Amino acid sequence: MLPYSWLLAVSLAALTGNTVGAAYERTERNCSATPPFLPSTAVNTSVQLRELRERMIPMNISAYIIPATDAHLSEYIAKRDARMAFMTGFTGSAGTAVVTQTKATLWTDSRYWVQAERQMDCNWELEKDVSVSNVAQWLISEVPSGGKIGFDPFLFSLKTQENYDINLESSNRSLKSIPVNLVDQVWKDRPSLPPDNLTRLPDRVIKRSWQMKVELIRSQMRENPYQPTALLLSALDETAWLFNLRGNDIPYNPFFYSYTLLTMDEIWLFLHLDRVSDELKVYLNASCDGPLCVQLKSYDSVLDNVKTYVAQPGVKVWIGTEYTNYGLYEIITPQDKLMTSSYSPVLTTKAVKDETEQQILRDAHVRDAVAVIQLLMWLEKTVPQGTETELTATEYVNKCRSKQKDSRGPSFETISASGPNAALAHYSPTPETSRRLTVDEMYLVDSGGQYLDGTTDITRTVHWGTPTAMQREAFTRVLMGNIEISRTIFPSGTRGVNMEMLGRRALWEVGLNYGHGTGHGVGNYFGVHEWPVGFQSNNIPFRAGMFTSIEPGFYKENDFGIRIEDIAVTVPAHTKYGHNYLTFDTVSLVPYDRKLIDISLLSSEQLQWLNKYYETIRRLVGPELDSQKLQEEKEWMLKNTEPFTELGSSASICSSSLTLIALAIALLHNIS
Amino acid sequence: MLPYSWLLAVSLAALTGNTVGAAYERTERNCSATPPFLPSTAVNTSVQLRELRERMIPMNISAYIIPATDAHLSEYIAKRDARMAFMTGFTGSAGTAVVTQTKATLWTDSRYWVQAERQMDCNWELEKDVSVSNVAQWLISEVPSGGKIGFDPFLFSLKTQENYDINLESSNRSLKSIPVNLVDQVWKDRPSLPPDNLTRLPDRVIKRSWQMKVELIRSQMRENPYQPTALLLSALDETAWLFNLRGNDIPYNPFFYSYTLLTMDEIWLFLHLDRVSDELKVYLNASCDGPLCVQLKSYDSVLDNVKTYVAQPGVKVWIGTEYTNYGLYEIITPQDKLMTSSYSPVLTTKAVKDETEQQILRDAHVRDAVAVIQLLMWLEKTVPQGTETELTATEYVNKCRSKQKDSRGPSFETISASGPNAALAHYSPTPETSRRLTVDEMYLVDSGGQYLDGTTDITRTVHWGTPTAMQREAFTRVLMGNIEISRTIFPSGTRGVNMEMLGRRALWEVGLNYGHGTGHGVGNYFGVHEWPVGFQSNNIPFRAGMFTSIEPGFYKENDFGIRIEDIAVTVPAHTKYGHNYLTFDTVSLVPYDRKLIDISLLSSEQLQWLNKYYETIRRLVGPELDSQKLQEEKEWMLKNTEPFTELGSSASICSSSLTLIALAIALLHNIS
Repeated sequence: MLPYSWLLAVSLAALTGNTVGAAYERTERNCSATPPFLPSTAVNTSVQLRELRERMIPMNISAYIIPATDAHLSEYIAKRDARMAFMTGFTGSAGTAVVTQTKATLWTDSRYWVQAERQMDCNWELEKDVSVSNVAQWLISEVPSGGKIGFDPFLFSLKTQENYDINLESSNRSLKSIPVNLVDQVWKDRPSLPPDNLTRLPDRVIKRSWQMKVELIRSQMRENPYQPTALLLSALDETAWLFNLRGNDIPYNPFFYSYTLLTMDEIWLFLHLDRVSDELKVYLNASCDGPLCVQLKSYDSVLDNVKTYVAQPGVKVWIGTEYTNYGLYEIITPQDKLMTSSYSPVLTTKAVKDETEQQILRDAHVRDAVAVIQLLMWLEKTVPQGTETELTATEYVNKCRSKQKDSRGPSFETISASGPNAALAHYSPTPETSRRLTVDEMYLVDSGGQYLDGTTDITRTVHWGTPTAMQREAFTRVLMGNIEISRTIFPSGTRGVNMEMLGRRALWEVGLNYGHGTGHGVGNYFGVHEWPVGFQSNNIPFRAGMFTSIEPGFYKENDFGIRIEDIAVTVPAHTKYGHNYLTFDTVSLVPYDRKLIDISLLSSEQLQWLNKYYETIRRLVGPELDSQKLQEEKEWMLKNTEPFTELGSSASICSSSLTLIALAIALLHNIS
Repeated sequence: MLPYSWLLAVSLAALTGNTVGAAYERTERNCSATPPFLPSTAVNTSVQLRELRERMIPMNISAYIIPATDAHLSEYIAKRDARMAFMTGFTGSAGTAVVTQTKATLWTDSRYWVQAERQMDCNWELEKDVSVSNVAQWLISEVPSGGKIGFDPFLFSLKTQENYDINLESSNRSLKSIPVNLVDQVWKDRPSLPPDNLTRLPDRVIKRSWQMKVELIRSQMRENPYQPTALLLSALDETAWLFNLRGNDIPYNPFFYSYTLLTMDEIWLFLHLDRVSDELKVYLNASCDGPLCVQLKSYDSVLDNVKTYVAQPGVKVWIGTEYTNYGLYEIITPQDKLMTSSYSPVLTTKAVKDETEQQILRDAHVRDAVAVIQLLMWLEKTVPQGTETELTATEYVNKCRSKQKDSRGPSFETISASGPNAALAHYSPTPETSRRLTVDEMYLVDSGGQYLDGTTDITRTVHWGTPTAMQREAFTRVLMGNIEISRTIFPSGTRGVNMEMLGRRALWEVGLNYGHGTGHGVGNYFGVHEWPVGFQSNNIPFRAGMFTSIEPGFYKENDFGIRIEDIAVTVPAHTKYGHNYLTFDTVSLVPYDRKLIDISLLSSEQLQWLNKYYETIRRLVGPELDSQKLQEEKEWMLKNTEPFTELGSSASICSSSLTLIALAIALLHNIS
């Protein structure tokens, strides 16, 4: 799946033509018409706005900011945290809403402008420049001099708060931190927590017990020259990783609401206590208070407890600045009680998978390949009959994955996109937009699964008819980019951002490019975008044992989209002279559409890589297909992993020349 | 020449064996011997230390910091700014000295440890970790609680000052800015300014007059959303570029001490007034005070004048944070009168050469190639006779350059390095270290010239005997890196740091690497390391018309060093589908040592690039050699730019096969 910080260079193409939905009707609001036109998808927000404005008055604030994230600055959020959606009607994943006594404005980026115009009523204005400086400028023009702008400090990162502060500087308007969320006060039917208990991972997927992990992290704290006395974990995957626990609070992500304060002699785990079974209490050693006893504390008490901890003399709390919320940050004072790094040692340790994690993540990808092969084979058969759509393809691949061992559902909402829809960033089909699949359009499917042993994410692009020359060239060059990154050898410690141009270079050669990042980390039954691994500028340097996606693409607006995404693991490379070099080993195991590959463009090294990759697919997926008794799929896989022969290589051409020579010489002998 | 921020991964190899100098003697001090041993190269610093310590007392400071730079944070400094060298005896280009009443310590990096031990007496201690945090730690241990640490604010950048501040925070020791330099007060025979007048560039090398440049920069100030009212130029090449002036204050760099404050309606030029001729005053329109009149003010009055300017209401001064000194920065208060960017619009505008600048810089490289070809041809003839050394080679190339039209001397101290000396970063030969050149060692020469029309910088590595297989492989892979960067096509706006791995990739493949940057900008009769262009993380994105060096290398400690450096200009690339793509056009025009190239390692694209480059050398340097009547050099050049034929290419092998077939068929015909 596309990396989170999509560059937004791929602009919004119109969502028209060939959709399966009903006949044309106006689907976007028109607030300048008299009376205003509102589509059926628009949400009436008058009640919640009125009630929020009433709550703002006693707080003495002129504006209130409503971000789209949760207190853990999660990429995916639970329904109960969808405060922006509740207030605005708009359900996109990114945006900021601001309410004053007279106005209500939403900022969201180009991916979501159409959706916002469909979902919002005329209480709301839409602003398109999502930079904090633009929001701040709007605030300065709407808030009277001396006015206060309220925000929930638990929904702002340190950086966001700082950014607003800088932009409001010397404007005589300032932020006011309001630790009680005002939206929650007016949200009467706010979804409650899921009732599910937390679960512990089975021993078969674990090498390091939680006690070992705690000791490992404590040793890193001990070795740190700044001598932190405590580590505060606030990203949801930090606590889940540390204790080998999983939950069900966030769609597609097996996380649960939690914080951890880890000191040298105590462990405080903040979570919803009623979700911890007696068995889990025993597992966590929760009835004592020694260094390897987990003291369970209520999720809501985290602020008070951290305050109490910080009030002690000689303490220093280590936090990760990329994701800790401002509410927790602001109580760690004075400055010398705070220690920061971009990512906590839990996140950097988690980034390097241990042997067991590596093996089970590879295993999950073998089973995942079966599901994707099933989808591709089925589409190849059924699309020419004209019965399938983007949505039925999504359903099919979900069903295939669900039959695989240890399946825990999809790891994100499937991107199943035909023709021009594939050129849209973050497109997922809806009944209104779902296109019928045909032999005349290219099709892109970006999907992934959660399994007890691993998280998967793979994109394949196919054509069931006759691709144009441009489509073949673009596809081949995207593939060349994928291969060039995959086969490169680099010193351990190289940053992904300094290598990712290899994914673009074959496209650049002919003046093509793509507007998104080139890859992101993945986890073991965790987030499909696992920080801090990948090819972006704020990712950490590569070490052996990290898993990342490699996903170059190309998008032609209103026409087609291509992306080829695989997960790969960094492994030691054996070089002639050096030590400590790495390369990638691709663990996604599904063949590429042969029809779209122009092998005359590939270098001999690229072709060799491709043939070796296909051998690996046969070696690893073949036996799995056998054991699942999927003979037709096995044949499909074998047909699609036939080795390519090098076009125009001196070996092949010249061996035929030599044959001719031999023939000529034989003739000569015969004659004489 | 190597980029400034050499990564220091190339460690210091011993400077022994095969040197031309006298018989072995102990050359480093030994302060723990009784009595201490001091080599003849050590400088007695007792007097200056005693006098400096006396000056520190009335200032009420416990320590005084002496950096190695000047008030313009120049990379190269004049002798009169070599305060660190005067105080310590150590003449290396990088370091920091700190003096307390009882101790004196120098910090310098691994390139200079040996040199420091040779030049310092036992008054000084040597510290090897040059990070500000390490210096600060030393200060905290040596300065009593509550103590002040003096520094000259004109010799600290904003960042250095901030860095010390952060590191001393909560230590109860603090910096004290002392605007009068204490070293200058005790430096009785401090070199005076060179008497030379400033010179203006001749019209033939100029497209944009200073008036046009002033208008250009003002329009950028006008368009800036932060609405600066003034631009303060403090890098020496900023003022020199703006007025098309040059000077002679800094060795190898045609700069003169200066600042400029440019507002919308006035121009204040701060310089040493006695160096401005009457003719120059007319040129600068110095007798009026309108928007295109240059008001000449004394160099030393810059602080007072900027203070006066800043005291006015409604002003905002724009500075470049990468190189403005703390002394000027600290007087621009309050905060809302300051506007910062990493580089001023003068530096970013200067980075893109206009048509004339591009053409004359190319022309200078043609003449420069003649000088380097003369050197290489001469060495090829004379080295086998055993008469030449690193130093005589330096003299020879300097002489060759001096004979070229518009020559203005070398652009830096020539790196002429044989065998193990070439593995040393920033090595330049001295009588003590100069090795005899032989057919048994590789030889690296990194040199450049100043010409009225351009600055050059080129490195060639050669072998006059039989290179080892490893030397050939390493050289070829360095060359492959140079070619891969040179031939790549990339979108305008791509950052060098995100492409520079192309220079390393062929080395990485076999586990080799190099520890320095991959390239830096060059100017038109300016600095040989011209900021902010290049391949480092703080360089600006590439646009068409920028000149940069491309200089991958490989260094084998105690054995040999390889570097292949060319200057290239970014030019538009014509691509099949896209617009606004760039590639490099190499303007250095000297062939590489054929003996060291293993063409079986090159890709067919690399070989094609190489042959095309050699064609360009013939086309451009050939006529120049003719017109300089250098027939022997012309033949040498032609011999060394013979096109390579592709080894093992299907074309060549198969055409010979086809010949055989034709022969066989002919025979058949004859027989029948």
